[in-house]
Order: sequence, then C-alpha cells, then structure tokens
Amino acid sequence: MKKFSVIGIGAGDPDHLTLQAVKAIGAADAFLILEKGEEKADLTGLRRAMLDAHARPGHRLVEGRDPDRDRTPAEYAPTVDGWRSARAEIFERFIADLADGETGAFLVWGDPSLYDSTLAILDEVLERGRVAFEHEVVPGISSVSALLARHRTNLNRVGRPVQITTGRRLAEGWPQDVDDVVVMLDARHAFTAHLDQDLFIYWGAYVGTPDEILVSGRLADVAGRIEELRTEARARKGWIMDTYLLRRG
Amino acid sequence: MKKFSVIGIGAGDPDHLTLQAVKAIGAADAFLILEKGEEKADLTGLRRAMLDAHARPGHRLVEGRDPDRDRTPAEYAPTVDGWRSARAEIFERFIADLADGETGAFLVWGDPSLYDSTLAILDEVLERGRVAFEHEVVPGISSVSALLARHRTNLNRVGRPVQITTGRRLAEGWPQDVDDVVVMLDARHAFTAHLDQDLFIYWGAYVGTPDEILVSGRLADVAGRIEELRTEARARKGWIMDTYLLRRG
Repeated sequence: MKKFSVIGIGAGDPDHLTLQAVKAIGAADAFLILEKGEEKADLTGLRRAMLDAHARPGHRLVEGRDPDRDRTPAEYAPTVDGWRSARAEIFERFIADLADGETGAFLVWGDPSLYDSTLAILDEVLERGRVAFEHEVVPGISSVSALLARHRTNLNRVGRPVQITTGRRLAEGWPQDVDDVVVMLDARHAFTAHLDQDLFIYWGAYVGTPDEILVSGRLADVAGRIEELRTEARARKGWIMDTYLLRRG
Repeated sequence: MKKFSVIGIGAGDPDHLTLQAVKAIGAADAFLILEKGEEKADLTGLRRAMLDAHARPGHRLVEGRDPDRDRTPAEYAPTVDGWRSARAEIFERFIADLADGETGAFLVWGDPSLYDSTLAILDEVLERGRVAFEHEVVPGISSVSALLARHRTNLNRVGRPVQITTGRRLAEGWPQDVDDVVVMLDARHAFTAHLDQDLFIYWGAYVGTPDEILVSGRLADVAGRIEELRTEARARKGWIMDTYLLRRG
C-alpha cells in the first residue's frame, strides 16, 4: 500500500515543527512541492530548509505548478471547486507515481485543519478512486496559536465562546453572540468596519518569521497604523500573511 | 532578570512537542509542577517523562498542590477568580524563589491560548508587582488540532466561520450563524440537546495517548454510543478529556 502524509509545519518558525512532524518528514520517500509564483518564494525557501534539515538522504522532490486561481479570498465556492479539482489531479499523479510501499508527503503551513484545502483535495482524490493509498495527518502549530503566543494572550475568555471567521464575513457584520473573533484571510482591512465598537485588537503578520510584525491596542487607536504597516509590508514583500483577534468589552 | 516560560506541550502525544518546546524545556532551570490529585496521575506521569527526555541535567522540580475548585466546568466567574488568585500565589512564590538570571517554566497541556488559565494567572502575578520577570509563551498543538488530525478533517469549511464553545453554552442553544461548532469542557453530554438537527460529529477522548477513543458519524446514530463510551472511560480512568466538532448540513 502507498502512504501519504499531510504534515503541518507550523506558522513560519522552523522550530514550530513537532517531533511527530520531524519523524514524518524523515520517513517520507518523496515530497510534493507546489510553487505558487514569486510572491511566496520566501515560504518555499523555508520549506526546503526544513527538508534539508530533516528529510532522509535520497528523498525525492516532485515539483508541481500550483493552479492559478482568483486572488480574492477563498470564499467563492465555484472558483474554489474548480481550483481544487485541478489540484486534486496534481496530487493524484504524484501518488500514482509512488512505488508500492512508498510514502509521499505534503507540507502544510500552520495546521492542516484550519483554512487549508489539502484534506478536502485528498478526499476528492480518494473519491475518484483511481489511486489507492492510506493517509495520515500530522497536526501543526496554527497561525492562530502562534499569534496569541507572541501576544501572550488567550484565544477565549473564561467559559466564553470564540469565533474564527474570514475578513469577508467580518466586513458584513459582527458575528452574533460572541465577543472574541479571530479573523483570517482578510485582504481588505475588514476591521475598519468596526471602529465604532469598544474593541481591542491583537494583530500579527509573518508571525514566527524574521519579518514578524506585531501590533496590539484599542482598535480605534491602532487601526490606522495596522493599515499602513500592512500596505507597506505587502508592497515590499509582494505578499502578506496576517491574522488577528478582536476582543470586545 | 528572571524569566518564565509557558510551554505548550500538545494534546497527550509526547511527539506533539515542538522543537521550540524541546529547546525551552532544555533551557529552564526549574519547573513548577502542580499535582491535581489522583485522577490526573497519568498526565503528571507524561509530563515527567517529557522532562526526563528533554530537561537539562540538574534541573529542579518544584511541586505545588493545585488549589481545589469546583469540579463543574470553569464557567462560574467568581469561583474561577478565587481559584485563580490562589494559583497566582503559587506561581508568585515559585518565581520569587528563582535566582536572578534563572528561567522557570510551566508545562501546559495543548496550547496555552485555548481554555487554559496560565496566561491570565501570570498577568495577575505581574499586576501584583511583587516579583519582576520576563515571560514567553511557546505555542502547542491544541486538543482541537489533534482531534481533527486524527479524524483527517477540517475545522472549517471553505470561507465559513467556526465557533469554539463550551458544553454549558451548547446545552443552552445552538450558536447563531455558524454550522461548525467545536465543544470543549463538556461534562454533561451537551450534544444530546441537538439530536433533532442534521449534524455530523467528530468526537475524541484522550486524543494522542494510548487510551485514545475516536468516534465519528451522524450525531443521531452515534450519540448513544459516545455517551456509553464516555461514561465507561470516565469510570475506569477517574477522569476524561474529550473534545468534539459538530458539523451541520
């Protein structure tokens, strides 16, 4: 039987790798690497450094070109479905090319369970039924855990709920019945729609990397600074990966 | 200056430790260990095994007796506040006893940002102002990430929000505007309040440990089995640590 490991590698700090991830990297025969274009060259470099450090001698790298998709956040289902199927074909071919008994692996930023499509893509490959394989998932440090660790604060308050949502949804309105909201995939500064509320923000970009930027404070006081930092960093690096927690009251 | 590290050690599997956590454990001079009574002896043993494997020779263990508190979930704020202050005194004494330049550490199950009180306790120690120290937080694999990795499924669906809440709140009603809900600290099988809905459950207890139990399926089909497994495991081991994701539609 062929095996496939989906390995969470943490939010950007190579030391976010778990011992389980180090072992899974060391056990794999081949790695699927998807290039996402120049803007993510930093991330590809980090991934390669992890493989240099932990993969076994003689491992293979199989490079694929990530299918293009709309650059707007991943919320328009038909676009996402088409992109996902194109990606499923790349995964299927990679698995088909593994020899029997070999293990293939794919490294996922953060935690594979949180706003990542790899598990759904593998489900699609399994549904097609053209290749047979077993797969395992290695959890990783999510960008949310990494952000909150750097701010040394909690995700939730005692006995209270917290919601994780997208920038697009936050722009449409504050979620019902929660005072703590984590926002991901926010390309348009959705927090600016809530400047009239009594909110505290814990924001971070490129958390865990040498480019890390952290800002916290009353939203009304720091929103402008975050917008500037975000725009400047995105222009300078060509891409941005940021997350924030908004806390009410 | 004295230093204090809050180290997330993952959800129960010793290989959930990150390289950052291994380094932080190896850099500490003294560890605060709080015994929680017999029911958690398994967890204390696991923590000690991690220290045996990764702490530097000559490290000190300082044992404290965790203040008793109401066994019901941590949602009644005054009770929690009193317990937290009692705990803050233990942390304060531990830090006061560190020599200048030394690093103390405390190991937290899962991720320190998620339903854990350690960061709030340290904030209270800092507010009292009787001991001066710097502190850092090492993120860990949360019980949520560990659960979803074992079930090989996502926390969220594409572009959709997810709520993390407590058993008590779920028993009061389904949260507004979300179809994916993670439930923690559920002592009373709160999922049974929602058997009439079209829900899928991904449940796990002692995830990552040799005692791990996993169940998934349509809630109406598997709720009874989860109740039985939960009651039996809790009676046999004296404690239970479980989490689940409910997914609608």
